[in-house]
Amino acid sequence: MRLEHFGERKAIKMISKITKTDVSDDCAVLPFGKKYFLFTTDMINEEIHIPKNSKPYCIGWHVVAVNLSDIAAKGGRPLGVSVALGMPKTYDAKFLKELSKGMYDCAKKYKTKIVGGDTKENSILTLCGSAVGVVNKKNIMLRKGAKPGDVVCVTGTLGASSAGLHSSNPKNVLMINPRVKEGIALGETNAVTSCMDISDGFACSVYQLSSLNKIGFEIDYELLPVDRSTKNVSRKLRIPLEELCVYSGGDYELLLTVKKSKLKTTINALKRIGTKLTPIGVVTKNQENILVKENKKTVLENRGWEHFRMRV
Amino acid sequence: MRLEHFGERKAIKMISKITKTDVSDDCAVLPFGKKYFLFTTDMINEEIHIPKNSKPYCIGWHVVAVNLSDIAAKGGRPLGVSVALGMPKTYDAKFLKELSKGMYDCAKKYKTKIVGGDTKENSILTLCGSAVGVVNKKNIMLRKGAKPGDVVCVTGTLGASSAGLHSSNPKNVLMINPRVKEGIALGETNAVTSCMDISDGFACSVYQLSSLNKIGFEIDYELLPVDRSTKNVSRKLRIPLEELCVYSGGDYELLLTVKKSKLKTTINALKRIGTKLTPIGVVTKNQENILVKENKKTVLENRGWEHFRMRV
Repeated sequence: MRLEHFGERKAIKMISKITKTDVSDDCAVLPFGKKYFLFTTDMINEEIHIPKNSKPYCIGWHVVAVNLSDIAAKGGRPLGVSVALGMPKTYDAKFLKELSKGMYDCAKKYKTKIVGGDTKENSILTLCGSAVGVVNKKNIMLRKGAKPGDVVCVTGTLGASSAGLHSSNPKNVLMINPRVKEGIALGETNAVTSCMDISDGFACSVYQLSSLNKIGFEIDYELLPVDRSTKNVSRKLRIPLEELCVYSGGDYELLLTVKKSKLKTTINALKRIGTKLTPIGVVTKNQENILVKENKKTVLENRGWEHFRMRV
Repeated sequence: MRLEHFGERKAIKMISKITKTDVSDDCAVLPFGKKYFLFTTDMINEEIHIPKNSKPYCIGWHVVAVNLSDIAAKGGRPLGVSVALGMPKTYDAKFLKELSKGMYDCAKKYKTKIVGGDTKENSILTLCGSAVGVVNKKNIMLRKGAKPGDVVCVTGTLGASSAGLHSSNPKNVLMINPRVKEGIALGETNAVTSCMDISDGFACSVYQLSSLNKIGFEIDYELLPVDRSTKNVSRKLRIPLEELCVYSGGDYELLLTVKKSKLKTTINALKRIGTKLTPIGVVTKNQENILVKENKKTVLENRGWEHFRMRV
């Protein structure tokens, strides 16, 4: 059986069974005294993840940002990022310099550094970022931990990345803002029971948390935070808003569950750093994920972005 | 100007100037209390680094091993390895399983684990490994530190990888043994003044240490440790032994400089763990690298393996 038939998630299961790797989180969590070391890696390439005609600056920014997002989802403080570049040898110095500037600026914005890397020849532009971070054991946020009764929340707004892609604005797709300071602030509340970024798509991420925690989500569609530009793209291009916000990948917001009694504290903790945290639903006992729209309950579909799958 | 004209080392200079990255070592060295946290990444792909018809098991082993070698060269204890896989979607489950087994076995042999990774679609098989490790500040070995009068040493033997490549034995090329326990033992002697692995080639590595430390090396060709199989390949295929041992990449031995007064202690420290450490020359004041062969001094050539360079 070939990869295109079983897809990315089954491939990861297959690998992790043999390598005995705990893949419940998108980031390795290594105990170190009173802290956890966090360690993550993400690879992108020009065929699949980088829109055509993207600026090298934006590509450099992106590969750093996606890795910082994994550290952020754990409540971690980044210690450093490294980037391995596989590049066609016909690429020029200007490309390399702009790419480097994007990497540098992104790391700097999130108060960390490019601490290393690798450069290799590759006929497909392929970039692999890795990040390390640290978090106090008591402040870590994992994917596991959501309990029935918890409130489901999301940072920022949904749909911007997908709207950018549809409107041929690759800048929106690549120049993402990982929720680093939000992750740290959320971890410090000790109120978050589970957390992950929604880079693979909102619905997809709901299903991942649901299956891992053996609980369900009931999401109120009308509460989902959407910004105006995404609504405009939906109207202009006649793409259902639901497709852009719920079933597309590329947003690097955090999806989290919060103890009900601590909801206000948590919202205020993010308000203090200028970020909106929106309650959008509740965790339920039944392992079923529901989208409530115009007072009707429908089953949230389990789809989004998955690698290797044949697009039929 | 295109990458093929200026090569890998200039590309690294260009990037690191913009990203303000210290690239004097092949591994990021991050201070953390009384310890250093080590962090490294290495990318390989099937076009450049993986001999045709290689077994997936050997490829999996290799990508883990090359990263452990960077941790080893610093005297570090590995904490974990992650592997990002970029794979054509036509690859099958058997490939994936054997690759994973190779990754797992290598990590296990060196007392560490596969702690994470990423799987992505890529039309060129591309693997990016990253490793994290830790070392007491007082035991770290850096590339900087060699002083005139120090003794130059190398672990194990030279030329096996290149001999394997020429004799179409890709197993030798991929199934490398990173010097992890040797690195830890060497770091604990506090006698090593500089250290690096010679994966880019022996001569190349001598030049890197020489330029970084503004000193020279005088290497005695007759003292270089070469094993019998490499000598056989040299004789059979009529390739000068010097080419295989001095000017080819792929050996993952450690090249180091040791305080003269502590040479015996250092050799014994490695003897205790079953590895030979061979003194092969001395560090000199003049920034000139000499190969003494049959009592004649010749200038060691600065060549080996460099990416992106046009092969003329």
